[in-house]
Amino acid sequence: MKQQILVDMDGVLANTYAQYIALEYKRSGKMLAMEDLRGKSEERAFPSYEEDVNSINFFGTAPLIEDSIEGLQYLNDKYKVIIVSSATEFPNSLNEKRGWLAKHFPFISWKQMIFCGSKEYIQGDIMIDDHPKNLRIFSGRKILFTQPHNVNIRNDNFERVTSWKEIMNIL
Amino acid sequence: MKQQILVDMDGVLANTYAQYIALEYKRSGKMLAMEDLRGKSEERAFPSYEEDVNSINFFGTAPLIEDSIEGLQYLNDKYKVIIVSSATEFPNSLNEKRGWLAKHFPFISWKQMIFCGSKEYIQGDIMIDDHPKNLRIFSGRKILFTQPHNVNIRNDNFERVTSWKEIMNIL
Repeated sequence: MKQQILVDMDGVLANTYAQYIALEYKRSGKMLAMEDLRGKSEERAFPSYEEDVNSINFFGTAPLIEDSIEGLQYLNDKYKVIIVSSATEFPNSLNEKRGWLAKHFPFISWKQMIFCGSKEYIQGDIMIDDHPKNLRIFSGRKILFTQPHNVNIRNDNFERVTSWKEIMNIL
Repeated sequence: MKQQILVDMDGVLANTYAQYIALEYKRSGKMLAMEDLRGKSEERAFPSYEEDVNSINFFGTAPLIEDSIEGLQYLNDKYKVIIVSSATEFPNSLNEKRGWLAKHFPFISWKQMIFCGSKEYIQGDIMIDDHPKNLRIFSGRKILFTQPHNVNIRNDNFERVTSWKEIMNIL
């Protein structure tokens, strides 16, 4: 029986940081540097966070995290993969997120997708997520995917990975 | 601690049967009678099922099941309510479903919504659903909401309800 693995979307498959930075550059001409974003929540790090996440095509055109296609294919062969994305907060994001997944990860079926508000009701053996709040309410093995907002997180019982290559090494 | 109750959308909150019947009448002039639909899956009962469920505004304009607003408000005061809807199969349904819930049930927050492919990964103490397949893979208390497609289901350990009034009586 394959283990069930819950894979987050934003910050794990979708490079939402690159998307915020590109939009901010387009808007203000200011190129935000990664070191300015470290340790700050996305809401604090990006001046137009609210506007961006609610804009049309924000999620639908997000670039991919490096090696995420190869990595997710690897996991999908070995585990029961479920993509679990916090999405219901943003009314227009749902169709875009589903379309984005289907476009980049055609080997993931609609049966493997969950779009939710809170992740506390979703069962699994392993969770990969960049948000500590999601890992903290999860009862299985917790893998924290490094993003600038979580670099200072140290006290929890998370395994930290910084890339999909690392995920493929440990799973 | 409140018990967690998973409430289905189509066939429990949304009157999708009324929607199929109205579309079929508009299309062919034929008014399908409830007795012709009994014991048949929706796919078999409605000649244009595939076209209908994939059409724009099918879910967004679905009428309400009788007493569902009052009933869900009752449950929401007494339980931890999560709306769990199979939606990812239909690429355009997600935003519509979220909008429909927000419009008719403003007391349900986005944190209480889950749109998925399969319901087997969702935890809860009680599930209300019109589809036996969803109840069979659920480990808690199983409540079957009567719809024409499920009238012949008898062998399972489900509690059957035929209305929201009945739900309010037993929960």
